Amino acid sequence: MRFATYTAEGETFYGAVSDTGMNSGMIALSPDFPQWPTMRDVIAADGLNRLAEAAQGKAVSHSDFTYEIPVPNPEKILCVGVNFPDRNAEYKDGSAAPKHMSLFPRFARSFTGASRPLIRPPENHTLDYEGEVAIIIGKGGRRIKAEDAYNHIAALTLCNEGTIRDWVRHAKFNVTQGKNWDNSGAIGPWLVPFTDAAQLDDARIQTRVNGETRQDDTLNRMMFPIREEIAYISTFTTLVPGDTIITGTPTGAGARFDPPKYLVPGDVVEVEVKGIGILRNTVEDEFGKDET
Amino acid sequence: MRFATYTAEGETFYGAVSDTGMNSGMIALSPDFPQWPTMRDVIAADGLNRLAEAAQGKAVSHSDFTYEIPVPNPEKILCVGVNFPDRNAEYKDGSAAPKHMSLFPRFARSFTGASRPLIRPPENHTLDYEGEVAIIIGKGGRRIKAEDAYNHIAALTLCNEGTIRDWVRHAKFNVTQGKNWDNSGAIGPWLVPFTDAAQLDDARIQTRVNGETRQDDTLNRMMFPIREEIAYISTFTTLVPGDTIITGTPTGAGARFDPPKYLVPGDVVEVEVKGIGILRNTVEDEFGKDET
Repeated sequence: MRFATYTAEGETFYGAVSDTGMNSGMIALSPDFPQWPTMRDVIAADGLNRLAEAAQGKAVSHSDFTYEIPVPNPEKILCVGVNFPDRNAEYKDGSAAPKHMSLFPRFARSFTGASRPLIRPPENHTLDYEGEVAIIIGKGGRRIKAEDAYNHIAALTLCNEGTIRDWVRHAKFNVTQGKNWDNSGAIGPWLVPFTDAAQLDDARIQTRVNGETRQDDTLNRMMFPIREEIAYISTFTTLVPGDTIITGTPTGAGARFDPPKYLVPGDVVEVEVKGIGILRNTVEDEFGKDET
Repeated sequence: MRFATYTAEGETFYGAVSDTGMNSGMIALSPDFPQWPTMRDVIAADGLNRLAEAAQGKAVSHSDFTYEIPVPNPEKILCVGVNFPDRNAEYKDGSAAPKHMSLFPRFARSFTGASRPLIRPPENHTLDYEGEVAIIIGKGGRRIKAEDAYNHIAALTLCNEGTIRDWVRHAKFNVTQGKNWDNSGAIGPWLVPFTDAAQLDDARIQTRVNGETRQDDTLNRMMFPIREEIAYISTFTTLVPGDTIITGTPTGAGARFDPPKYLVPGDVVEVEVKGIGILRNTVEDEFGKDET
Protein backbone atom coordinates (compact mmCIF):
# COMPACT_ATOMS: atom_id res chain seq x y z
CA MET A 1 0.00 0.00 0.00
CA ARG A 2 1.24 3.46 -0.91
CA PHE A 3 -0.06 6.79 0.38
CA ALA A 4 0.20 10.20 -1.22
CA THR A 5 -0.71 13.81 -0.68
CA TYR A 6 -2.20 15.35 -3.81
CA THR A 7 -4.29 18.17 -5.17
CA ALA A 8 -7.44 17.60 -7.21
CA GLU A 9 -10.26 19.97 -8.07
CA GLY A 10 -8.37 22.77 -6.32
CA GLU A 11 -8.27 20.96 -2.96
CA THR A 12 -5.48 19.05 -1.21
CA PHE A 13 -6.17 15.48 -0.11
CA TYR A 14 -4.25 12.52 1.14
CA GLY A 15 -5.13 9.06 0.04
CA ALA A 16 -4.05 5.68 -1.22
CA VAL A 17 -2.53 5.11 -4.63
CA SER A 18 -4.34 2.66 -6.90
CA ASP A 19 -2.82 1.49 -10.15
CA THR A 20 -4.66 -1.74 -10.75
CA GLY A 21 -5.40 -1.71 -14.42
CA MET A 22 -8.19 0.59 -15.52
CA ASN A 23 -8.72 1.76 -11.99
CA SER A 24 -5.63 3.91 -11.62
CA GLY A 25 -5.66 7.07 -9.55
CA MET A 26 -6.13 8.18 -5.97
CA ILE A 27 -8.50 6.84 -3.37
CA ALA A 28 -9.23 9.92 -1.27
CA LEU A 29 -8.97 9.14 2.44
CA SER A 30 -8.57 12.52 4.13
CA PRO A 31 -12.34 13.18 3.98
CA ASP A 32 -12.81 10.12 6.21
CA PHE A 33 -10.33 11.33 8.83
CA PRO A 34 -11.21 14.89 9.84
CA GLN A 35 -9.20 14.35 13.04
CA TRP A 36 -6.07 14.13 10.87
CA PRO A 37 -6.07 17.15 8.54
CA THR A 38 -2.71 16.35 6.90
CA MET A 39 -0.45 13.37 6.35
CA ARG A 40 1.72 14.71 9.16
CA ASP A 41 -1.22 14.22 11.53
CA VAL A 42 -1.69 10.68 10.21
CA ILE A 43 1.96 9.92 10.89
CA ALA A 44 1.79 11.50 14.35
CA ALA A 45 -1.19 9.24 15.18
CA ASP A 46 0.60 6.17 13.77
CA GLY A 47 -2.38 5.96 11.44
CA LEU A 48 -1.05 4.46 8.19
CA ASN A 49 -2.63 1.10 9.07
CA ARG A 50 -5.98 2.79 9.57
CA LEU A 51 -5.63 4.40 6.14
CA ALA A 52 -4.88 1.02 4.60
CA GLU A 53 -7.99 -0.49 6.15
CA ALA A 54 -10.13 2.43 5.04
CA ALA A 55 -8.90 2.08 1.45
CA GLN A 56 -10.00 -1.56 1.16
CA GLY A 57 -12.59 -2.01 -1.54
CA LYS A 58 -12.90 1.71 -2.18
CA ALA A 59 -13.10 3.07 -5.70
CA VAL A 60 -10.70 5.61 -7.13
CA SER A 61 -11.81 9.13 -6.26
CA HIS A 62 -9.49 11.13 -8.50
CA SER A 63 -7.81 10.09 -11.70
CA ASP A 64 -6.83 13.67 -12.51
CA PHE A 65 -4.54 14.94 -9.74
CA THR A 66 -1.22 16.62 -8.97
CA TYR A 67 1.25 15.15 -6.49
CA GLU A 68 2.30 17.22 -3.51
CA ILE A 69 5.25 16.30 -1.35
CA PRO A 70 3.97 13.39 0.78
CA VAL A 71 4.31 15.14 4.17
CA PRO A 72 3.79 18.72 3.02
CA ASN A 73 4.41 20.51 6.33
CA PRO A 74 7.13 18.72 8.31
CA GLU A 75 8.59 20.57 11.28
CA LYS A 76 11.99 20.00 9.76
CA ILE A 77 13.74 18.49 6.77
CA LEU A 78 17.38 17.55 7.28
CA CYS A 79 19.70 16.37 4.54
CA VAL A 80 22.89 14.37 4.97
CA GLY A 81 25.69 15.53 2.67
CA VAL A 82 28.63 13.65 1.17
CA ASN A 83 27.56 10.25 2.49
CA PHE A 84 29.05 7.83 -0.06
CA PRO A 85 32.79 7.10 -0.10
CA ASP A 86 33.36 8.17 -3.69
CA ARG A 87 31.61 11.46 -3.08
CA ASN A 88 34.08 12.41 -0.39
CA ALA A 89 36.88 11.65 -2.88
CA GLU A 90 35.10 13.78 -5.49
CA TYR A 91 35.84 16.88 -3.46
CA LYS A 92 39.55 16.31 -4.17
CA ASP A 93 40.59 18.23 -1.08
CA GLY A 94 42.68 15.35 0.22
CA SER A 95 40.48 15.07 3.27
CA ALA A 96 40.12 11.73 5.01
CA ALA A 97 36.70 10.24 5.51
CA PRO A 98 34.88 12.65 7.84
CA LYS A 99 34.37 11.77 11.48
CA HIS A 100 30.90 13.30 11.59
CA MET A 101 28.21 13.64 8.96
CA SER A 102 27.52 16.91 7.19
CA LEU A 103 23.95 18.11 7.70
CA PHE A 104 21.90 20.90 6.21
CA PRO A 105 18.23 21.82 6.48
CA ARG A 106 15.98 22.44 3.52
CA PHE A 107 12.69 24.28 3.58
CA ALA A 108 9.64 22.36 2.35
CA ARG A 109 9.08 24.97 -0.35
CA SER A 110 12.39 24.00 -1.96
CA PHE A 111 10.68 20.77 -3.04
CA THR A 112 7.87 20.06 -5.45
CA GLY A 113 5.88 16.84 -5.86
CA ALA A 114 6.35 13.99 -8.30
CA SER A 115 5.59 14.46 -12.01
CA ARG A 116 5.95 18.22 -11.65
CA PRO A 117 8.75 20.36 -13.05
CA LEU A 118 11.93 21.16 -11.18
CA ILE A 119 12.38 24.90 -11.63
CA ARG A 120 15.57 26.37 -13.09
CA PRO A 121 15.76 30.02 -11.98
CA PRO A 122 16.95 32.81 -14.25
CA GLU A 123 19.71 33.82 -11.83
CA ASN A 124 21.74 30.67 -12.33
CA HIS A 125 21.58 27.65 -14.59
CA THR A 126 23.64 25.09 -12.66
CA LEU A 127 20.57 23.09 -11.59
CA ASP A 128 21.76 19.62 -10.61
CA TYR A 129 20.11 16.37 -9.50
CA GLU A 130 20.86 14.19 -6.47
CA GLY A 131 18.86 10.98 -6.03
CA GLU A 132 18.25 9.97 -2.42
CA VAL A 133 16.03 7.95 -0.13
CA ALA A 134 14.00 10.01 2.33
CA ILE A 135 12.76 8.62 5.61
CA ILE A 136 9.74 9.94 7.49
CA ILE A 137 10.00 9.88 11.27
CA GLY A 138 7.04 8.21 13.00
CA LYS A 139 7.70 8.04 16.70
CA GLY A 140 9.64 11.11 17.78
CA GLY A 141 12.40 11.22 20.31
CA ARG A 142 15.67 12.67 21.54
CA ARG A 143 18.95 10.80 21.87
CA ILE A 144 17.58 7.79 20.01
CA LYS A 145 20.04 4.89 20.04
CA ALA A 146 21.23 3.64 16.66
CA GLU A 147 20.00 0.14 17.43
CA ASP A 148 16.49 1.50 18.10
CA ALA A 149 16.48 3.96 15.19
CA TYR A 150 14.48 1.89 12.73
CA ASN A 151 11.61 1.79 15.23
CA HIS A 152 11.28 5.53 14.71
CA ILE A 153 10.75 5.39 10.93
CA ALA A 154 7.13 5.42 9.76
CA ALA A 155 7.62 5.43 6.01
CA LEU A 156 10.00 5.80 3.08
CA THR A 157 9.90 7.95 -0.01
CA LEU A 158 12.30 9.28 -2.64
CA CYS A 159 13.99 12.62 -3.09
CA ASN A 160 15.64 14.45 -5.91
CA GLU A 161 17.68 16.79 -3.77
CA GLY A 162 17.99 19.32 -6.59
CA THR A 163 20.68 21.90 -6.12
CA ILE A 164 21.78 25.17 -7.69
CA ARG A 165 25.40 24.10 -7.67
CA ASP A 166 27.09 27.50 -8.05
CA TRP A 167 25.20 28.87 -5.06
CA VAL A 168 26.35 26.00 -2.81
CA ARG A 169 29.76 27.65 -3.00
CA HIS A 170 28.58 31.21 -2.32
CA ALA A 171 29.57 31.14 1.34
CA LYS A 172 32.42 29.44 3.09
CA PHE A 173 30.59 27.69 5.91
CA ASN A 174 27.23 26.68 4.54
CA VAL A 175 25.43 25.31 1.52
CA THR A 176 22.06 26.80 2.54
CA GLN A 177 21.47 29.06 -0.43
CA GLY A 178 22.34 26.48 -3.09
CA LYS A 179 20.01 23.95 -1.48
CA ASN A 180 16.90 26.03 -0.93
CA TRP A 181 15.71 27.47 -4.21
CA ASP A 182 11.95 27.21 -4.41
CA ASN A 183 10.89 24.05 -6.27
CA SER A 184 14.44 23.10 -7.14
CA GLY A 185 14.04 19.54 -5.80
CA ALA A 186 11.28 16.98 -5.39
CA ILE A 187 10.01 14.48 -2.82
CA GLY A 188 7.66 11.61 -3.60
CA PRO A 189 5.77 10.25 -5.29
CA TRP A 190 4.28 8.54 -2.24
CA LEU A 191 4.95 7.02 1.15
CA VAL A 192 5.67 3.33 1.51
CA PRO A 193 5.20 2.16 5.11
CA PHE A 194 8.46 0.99 6.64
CA THR A 195 7.89 -2.53 7.93
CA ASP A 196 11.12 -4.43 7.25
CA ALA A 197 14.78 -3.43 7.70
CA ALA A 198 15.57 -4.95 4.30
CA GLN A 199 13.62 -2.11 2.64
CA LEU A 200 16.62 0.07 3.48
CA ASP A 201 19.45 -2.36 4.09
CA ASP A 202 19.15 -4.06 0.70
CA ALA A 203 18.10 -1.00 -1.31
CA ARG A 204 19.75 0.00 -4.56
CA ILE A 205 19.24 3.57 -5.75
CA GLN A 206 19.51 4.77 -9.33
CA THR A 207 19.14 8.16 -10.92
CA ARG A 208 18.55 8.56 -14.64
CA VAL A 209 18.49 11.66 -16.81
CA ASN A 210 16.60 11.18 -20.09
CA GLY A 211 17.00 7.43 -19.55
CA GLU A 212 20.79 7.53 -19.03
CA THR A 213 21.92 6.15 -15.68
CA ARG A 214 23.93 8.75 -13.78
CA GLN A 215 23.84 7.43 -10.21
CA ASP A 216 23.73 3.76 -9.20
CA ASP A 217 24.67 2.57 -5.76
CA THR A 218 23.45 0.64 -2.71
CA LEU A 219 22.50 2.16 0.62
CA ASN A 220 24.69 -0.32 2.48
CA ARG A 221 27.73 1.60 1.20
CA MET A 222 26.78 4.79 3.05
CA MET A 223 29.54 6.10 5.31
CA PHE A 224 26.88 7.11 7.83
CA PRO A 225 24.12 4.51 7.79
CA ILE A 226 20.55 5.65 8.35
CA ARG A 227 20.52 4.24 11.89
CA GLU A 228 23.46 6.49 12.75
CA GLU A 229 21.84 9.49 11.06
CA ILE A 230 18.82 9.22 13.34
CA ALA A 231 21.01 8.71 16.40
CA TYR A 232 23.31 11.63 15.63
CA ILE A 233 20.59 14.11 14.63
CA SER A 234 18.47 13.28 17.66
CA THR A 235 21.45 13.98 19.90
CA PHE A 236 20.97 17.70 19.38
CA THR A 237 17.36 18.13 18.24
CA THR A 238 14.13 16.41 19.21
CA LEU A 239 12.74 14.51 16.25
CA VAL A 240 8.97 14.73 15.88
CA PRO A 241 6.50 12.80 13.70
CA GLY A 242 6.72 13.81 10.06
CA ASP A 243 10.30 15.02 10.27
CA THR A 244 12.03 14.09 7.06
CA ILE A 245 15.63 12.96 6.74
CA ILE A 246 17.15 12.88 3.26
CA THR A 247 19.83 10.33 3.64
CA GLY A 248 22.58 11.10 1.13
CA THR A 249 23.28 10.80 -2.59
CA PRO A 250 25.70 8.49 -4.45
CA THR A 251 28.40 9.74 -6.78
CA GLY A 252 27.43 10.88 -10.26
CA ALA A 253 25.69 14.24 -9.90
CA GLY A 254 25.96 16.45 -12.98
CA ALA A 255 28.61 18.70 -11.40
CA ARG A 256 31.07 15.79 -11.31
CA PHE A 257 31.30 15.42 -15.08
CA ASP A 258 33.82 17.35 -17.14
CA PRO A 259 32.23 19.42 -18.52
CA PRO A 260 29.38 19.38 -15.99
CA LYS A 261 26.05 17.97 -17.10
CA TYR A 262 23.56 20.33 -15.54
CA LEU A 263 19.83 19.95 -16.06
CA VAL A 264 18.21 21.89 -18.87
CA PRO A 265 14.55 22.52 -19.67
CA GLY A 266 12.91 19.44 -21.12
CA ASP A 267 15.10 16.96 -19.24
CA VAL A 268 13.38 14.10 -17.44
CA VAL A 269 14.98 12.95 -14.18
CA GLU A 270 14.07 9.70 -12.48
CA VAL A 271 15.11 8.47 -9.06
CA GLU A 272 14.30 4.80 -8.51
CA VAL A 273 14.46 2.36 -5.62
CA LYS A 274 12.77 -0.98 -6.10
CA GLY A 275 10.04 -1.42 -3.51
CA ILE A 276 9.60 2.32 -3.12
CA GLY A 277 8.99 3.47 -6.67
CA ILE A 278 10.14 6.01 -9.21
CA LEU A 279 10.23 9.75 -8.61
CA ARG A 280 10.00 11.36 -12.04
CA ASN A 281 10.28 15.10 -12.73
CA THR A 282 10.75 17.29 -15.74
CA VAL A 283 12.75 20.51 -15.79
CA GLU A 284 11.41 23.95 -16.70
CA ASP A 285 12.73 27.47 -16.72
CA GLU A 286 10.99 29.56 -14.09
CA PHE A 287 9.73 32.18 -16.50
CA GLY A 288 9.67 30.05 -19.62
CA LYS A 289 12.25 30.28 -22.35
CA ASP A 290 14.33 33.31 -23.30
CA GLU A 291 14.10 34.82 -19.87
CA THR A 292 17.77 35.37 -19.26
CA MET B 1 3.83 49.16 22.34
CA ARG B 2 5.42 45.74 22.68
CA PHE B 3 3.79 42.38 21.98
CA ALA B 4 4.74 38.99 23.34
CA THR B 5 3.80 35.35 23.18
CA TYR B 6 3.68 33.78 26.62
CA THR B 7 2.36 30.91 28.68
CA ALA B 8 0.21 31.42 31.78
CA GLU B 9 -2.00 28.97 33.65
CA GLY B 10 -0.86 26.23 31.27
CA GLU B 11 -2.10 28.02 28.15
CA THR B 12 -0.26 29.99 25.47
CA PHE B 13 -1.41 33.54 24.75
CA TYR B 14 -0.21 36.54 22.87
CA GLY B 15 -0.69 39.98 24.25
CA ALA B 16 0.72 43.39 25.01
CA VAL B 17 3.42 44.02 27.57
CA SER B 18 2.56 46.44 30.37
CA ASP B 19 5.20 47.67 32.78
CA THR B 20 3.66 50.85 34.06
CA GLY B 21 4.42 50.81 37.73
CA MET B 22 2.33 48.44 39.80
CA ASN B 23 0.47 47.27 36.77
CA SER B 24 3.23 45.19 35.21
CA GLY B 25 2.47 42.01 33.30
CA MET B 26 0.70 40.85 30.19
CA ILE B 27 -2.52 42.14 28.70
CA ALA B 28 -3.95 39.02 27.03
CA LEU B 29 -5.15 39.79 23.51
CA SER B 30 -5.34 36.40 21.78
CA PRO B 31 -8.74 35.65 23.37
CA ASP B 32 -10.13 38.70 21.51
CA PHE B 33 -8.80 37.55 18.12
CA PRO B 34 -9.91 33.96 17.52
CA GLN B 35 -9.31 34.53 13.81
CA TRP B 36 -5.58 34.84 14.59
CA PRO B 37 -4.62 31.84 16.71
CA THR B 38 -0.92 32.71 16.94
CA MET B 39 1.30 35.76 16.59
CA ARG B 40 2.27 34.48 13.16
CA ASP B 41 -1.36 34.87 12.12
CA VAL B 42 -1.40 38.40 13.52
CA ILE B 43 1.69 39.25 11.49
CA ALA B 44 0.24 37.65 8.36
CA ALA B 45 -2.88 39.83 8.75
CA ASP B 46 -0.78 42.95 9.38
CA GLY B 47 -2.63 43.08 12.69
CA LEU B 48 -0.18 44.64 15.17
CA ASN B 49 -2.06 47.95 14.98
CA ARG B 50 -5.30 46.16 15.79
CA LEU B 51 -3.61 44.60 18.82
CA ALA B 52 -2.42 47.99 19.96
CA GLU B 53 -5.93 49.42 19.74
CA ALA B 54 -7.38 46.45 21.59
CA ALA B 55 -4.87 46.86 24.42
CA GLN B 56 -5.84 50.47 25.12
CA GLY B 57 -7.22 50.85 28.62
CA LYS B 58 -7.17 47.14 29.32
CA ALA B 59 -5.98 45.80 32.64
CA VAL B 60 -3.13 43.33 33.03
CA SER B 61 -4.40 39.77 32.63
CA HIS B 62 -1.35 37.85 33.80
CA SER B 63 1.42 38.94 36.11
CA ASP B 64 2.73 35.38 36.44
CA PHE B 65 3.79 34.16 33.01
CA THR B 66 6.60 32.58 31.01
CA TYR B 67 7.88 34.09 27.78
CA GLU B 68 7.75 32.04 24.60
CA ILE B 69 9.62 33.03 21.46
CA PRO B 70 7.54 35.89 20.02
CA VAL B 71 6.60 34.14 16.76
CA PRO B 72 6.65 30.56 17.99
CA ASN B 73 6.01 28.75 14.71
CA PRO B 74 7.67 30.59 11.83
CA GLU B 75 7.94 28.80 8.52
CA LYS B 76 11.65 29.45 8.62
CA ILE B 77 14.37 31.02 10.70
CA LEU B 78 17.50 32.05 8.82
CA CYS B 79 20.67 33.29 10.46
CA VAL B 80 23.40 35.37 8.83
CA GLY B 81 26.89 34.31 9.86
CA VAL B 82 30.15 36.26 10.13
CA ASN B 83 28.55 39.61 9.34
CA PHE B 84 30.85 42.07 11.12
CA PRO B 85 34.30 42.86 9.70
CA ASP B 86 36.23 41.86 12.80
CA ARG B 87 34.46 38.51 12.89
CA ASN B 88 35.74 37.61 9.45
CA ALA B 89 39.25 38.45 10.66
CA GLU B 90 38.67 36.30 13.75
CA TYR B 91 38.63 33.21 11.59
CA LYS B 92 42.33 33.85 10.80
CA ASP B 93 42.12 31.93 7.53
CA GLY B 94 43.49 34.85 5.55
CA SER B 95 40.28 35.10 3.58
CA ALA B 96 39.21 38.41 2.13
CA ALA B 97 35.83 39.81 3.01
CA PRO B 98 33.31 37.36 1.55
CA LYS B 99 31.40 38.22 -1.59
CA HIS B 100 28.19 36.60 -0.36
CA MET B 101 26.74 36.21 3.09
CA SER B 102 26.88 32.93 4.99
CA LEU B 103 23.41 31.65 5.89
CA PHE B 104 22.17 28.82 8.05
CA PRO B 105 18.72 27.80 9.21
CA ARG B 106 17.80 27.14 12.81
CA PHE B 107 14.78 25.22 14.01
CA ALA B 108 12.40 27.07 16.34
CA ARG B 109 12.98 24.46 19.03
CA SER B 110 16.62 25.52 19.24
CA PHE B 111 15.39 28.72 20.91
CA THR B 112 13.72 29.36 24.23
CA GLY B 113 11.96 32.53 25.40
CA ALA B 114 13.27 35.41 27.48
CA SER B 115 13.99 34.93 31.18
CA ARG B 116 14.30 31.17 30.70
CA PRO B 117 17.48 29.12 30.91
CA LEU B 118 19.69 28.39 27.95
CA ILE B 119 20.40 24.66 28.16
CA ARG B 120 23.94 23.28 28.26
CA PRO B 121 23.77 19.63 27.14
CA PRO B 122 25.81 16.87 28.77
CA GLU B 123 27.45 15.93 25.45
CA ASN B 124 29.43 19.14 25.14
CA HIS B 125 30.08 22.17 27.31
CA THR B 126 31.17 24.77 24.74
CA LEU B 127 27.87 26.68 24.95
CA ASP B 128 28.50 30.16 23.61
CA TYR B 129 26.47 33.38 23.24
CA GLU B 130 25.94 35.56 20.17
CA GLY B 131 23.85 38.70 20.56
CA GLU B 132 21.86 39.69 17.48
CA VAL B 133 18.88 41.65 16.22
CA ALA B 134 16.11 39.52 14.74
CA ILE B 135 13.66 40.86 12.19
CA ILE B 136 10.19 39.45 11.63
CA ILE B 137 8.96 39.50 8.04
CA GLY B 138 5.53 41.08 7.60
CA LYS B 139 4.70 41.27 3.93
CA GLY B 140 6.14 38.24 2.17
CA GLY B 141 7.73 38.18 -1.24
CA ARG B 142 10.28 36.80 -3.64
CA ARG B 143 13.14 38.75 -5.21
CA ILE B 144 12.51 41.73 -2.96
CA LYS B 145 14.70 44.69 -3.92
CA ALA B 146 17.08 45.98 -1.26
CA GLU B 147 15.55 49.44 -1.48
CA ASP B 148 12.09 47.99 -0.72
CA ALA B 149 13.28 45.56 1.94
CA TYR B 150 12.32 47.60 5.00
CA ASN B 151 8.71 47.61 3.79
CA HIS B 152 8.70 43.86 4.38
CA ILE B 153 9.67 44.02 8.07
CA ALA B 154 6.79 43.89 10.56
CA ALA B 155 8.69 43.93 13.83
CA LEU B 156 12.02 43.63 15.61
CA THR B 157 13.18 41.50 18.48
CA LEU B 158 16.44 40.24 19.97
CA CYS B 159 18.25 36.94 19.72
CA ASN B 160 20.92 35.17 21.67
CA GLU B 161 22.04 32.88 18.91
CA GLY B 162 23.47 30.36 21.37
CA THR B 163 25.83 27.84 19.88
CA ILE B 164 27.53 24.61 20.89
CA ARG B 165 30.83 25.76 19.47
CA ASP B 166 32.63 22.41 19.16
CA TRP B 167 29.76 20.97 17.13
CA VAL B 168 29.90 23.85 14.63
CA ARG B 169 33.15 22.28 13.47
CA HIS B 170 31.89 18.70 13.26
CA ALA B 171 31.38 18.78 9.53
CA LYS B 172 33.28 20.53 6.81
CA PHE B 173 30.47 22.24 4.92
CA ASN B 174 27.88 23.16 7.50
CA VAL B 175 27.35 24.51 10.99
CA THR B 176 23.89 22.93 11.34
CA GLN B 177 24.53 20.66 14.30
CA GLY B 178 26.30 23.28 16.41
CA LYS B 179 23.47 25.74 15.85
CA ASN B 180 20.44 23.60 16.53
CA TRP B 181 20.66 22.14 20.01
CA ASP B 182 17.24 22.30 21.66
CA ASN B 183 16.91 25.44 23.81
CA SER B 184 20.50 26.50 23.23
CA GLY B 185 19.52 30.02 22.16
CA ALA B 186 16.77 32.52 22.87
CA ILE B 187 14.54 34.98 21.01
CA GLY B 188 12.59 37.77 22.68
CA PRO B 189 11.46 39.12 24.95
CA TRP B 190 8.88 40.76 22.72
CA LEU B 191 8.14 42.28 19.32
CA VAL B 192 8.57 45.99 18.74
CA PRO B 193 6.71 47.13 15.61
CA PHE B 194 9.11 48.38 12.95
CA THR B 195 8.00 51.88 12.00
CA ASP B 196 11.19 53.85 11.38
CA ALA B 197 14.41 52.94 9.55
CA ALA B 198 16.41 54.51 12.39
CA GLN B 199 15.34 51.63 14.66
CA LEU B 200 17.83 49.51 12.70
CA ASP B 201 20.14 52.02 11.06
CA ASP B 202 21.14 53.71 14.32
CA ALA B 203 21.03 50.65 16.56
CA ARG B 204 23.84 49.69 18.91
CA ILE B 205 23.92 46.13 20.19
CA GLN B 206 25.57 44.98 23.38
CA THR B 207 25.93 41.56 24.97
CA ARG B 208 26.83 41.18 28.63
CA VAL B 209 27.69 38.08 30.63
CA ASN B 210 27.21 38.54 34.38
CA GLY B 211 27.27 42.28 33.77
CA GLU B 212 30.57 42.27 31.81
CA THR B 213 30.28 43.66 28.29
CA ARG B 214 31.48 41.10 25.73
CA GLN B 215 29.98 42.41 22.49
CA ASP B 216 29.38 46.06 21.63
CA ASP B 217 28.90 47.26 18.10
CA THR B 218 26.55 49.13 15.78
CA LEU B 219 24.43 47.60 13.07
CA ASN B 220 25.67 50.12 10.52
CA ARG B 221 29.01 48.28 10.50
CA MET B 222 27.50 45.07 9.15
CA MET B 223 29.20 43.81 5.98
CA PHE B 224 25.79 42.72 4.68
CA PRO B 225 23.19 45.26 5.80
CA ILE B 226 19.71 44.01 6.67
CA ARG B 227 18.28 45.40 3.42
CA GLU B 228 20.71 43.21 1.49
CA GLU B 229 19.96 40.19 3.65
CA ILE B 230 16.28 40.37 2.72
CA ALA B 231 17.11 40.92 -0.95
CA TYR B 232 19.59 38.05 -1.15
CA ILE B 233 17.54 35.52 0.82
CA SER B 234 14.39 36.27 -1.15
CA THR B 235 16.29 35.64 -4.37
CA PHE B 236 16.15 31.90 -3.73
CA THR B 237 13.26 31.40 -1.28
CA THR B 238 9.87 33.04 -0.92
CA LEU B 239 9.69 34.93 2.36
CA VAL B 240 6.35 34.61 4.15
CA PRO B 241 4.89 36.49 7.13
CA GLY B 242 6.52 35.49 10.40
CA ASP B 243 9.77 34.39 8.81
CA THR B 244 12.58 35.37 11.12
CA ILE B 245 15.99 36.59 10.03
CA ILE B 246 18.73 36.73 12.64
CA THR B 247 20.99 39.34 11.27
CA GLY B 248 24.53 38.65 12.51
CA THR B 249 26.60 38.99 15.68
CA PRO B 250 29.49 41.36 16.47
CA THR B 251 32.90 40.18 17.55
CA GLY B 252 33.38 39.04 21.13
CA ALA B 253 31.73 35.64 21.47
CA GLY B 254 33.22 33.45 24.17
CA ALA B 255 35.11 31.27 21.68
CA ARG B 256 37.27 34.24 20.67
CA PHE B 257 38.92 34.64 24.06
CA ASP B 258 42.10 32.76 24.97
CA PRO B 259 41.22 30.68 26.86
CA PRO B 260 37.62 30.63 25.62
CA LYS B 261 34.93 31.97 27.93
CA TYR B 262 32.09 29.54 27.44
CA LEU B 263 28.84 29.83 29.37
CA VAL B 264 28.48 27.85 32.58
CA PRO B 265 25.44 27.14 34.74
CA GLY B 266 24.41 30.18 36.73
CA ASP B 267 25.64 32.70 34.16
CA VAL B 268 23.29 35.52 33.18
CA VAL B 269 23.48 36.68 29.56
CA GLU B 270 21.89 39.91 28.37
CA VAL B 271 21.49 41.15 24.80
CA GLU B 272 20.44 44.79 24.63
CA VAL B 273 19.42 47.21 21.91
CA LYS B 274 17.96 50.51 23.05
CA GLY B 275 14.44 50.88 21.72
CA ILE B 276 13.96 47.12 21.49
CA GLY B 277 14.79 45.97 25.01
CA ILE B 278 16.91 43.48 26.89
CA LEU B 279 16.85 39.73 26.28
CA ARG B 280 18.01 38.14 29.52
CA ASN B 281 18.63 34.42 30.03
CA THR B 282 20.27 32.26 32.63
CA VAL B 283 22.23 29.08 31.87
CA GLU B 284 21.44 25.61 33.21
CA ASP B 285 22.76 22.13 32.70
CA GLU B 286 20.18 19.98 30.95
CA PHE B 287 20.02 17.34 33.63
CA GLY B 288 21.11 19.44 36.57
CA LYS B 289 24.59 19.37 38.04
CA ASP B 290 26.96 16.39 38.10
CA GLU B 291 25.44 14.84 35.05
CA THR B 292 28.60 14.35 33.06
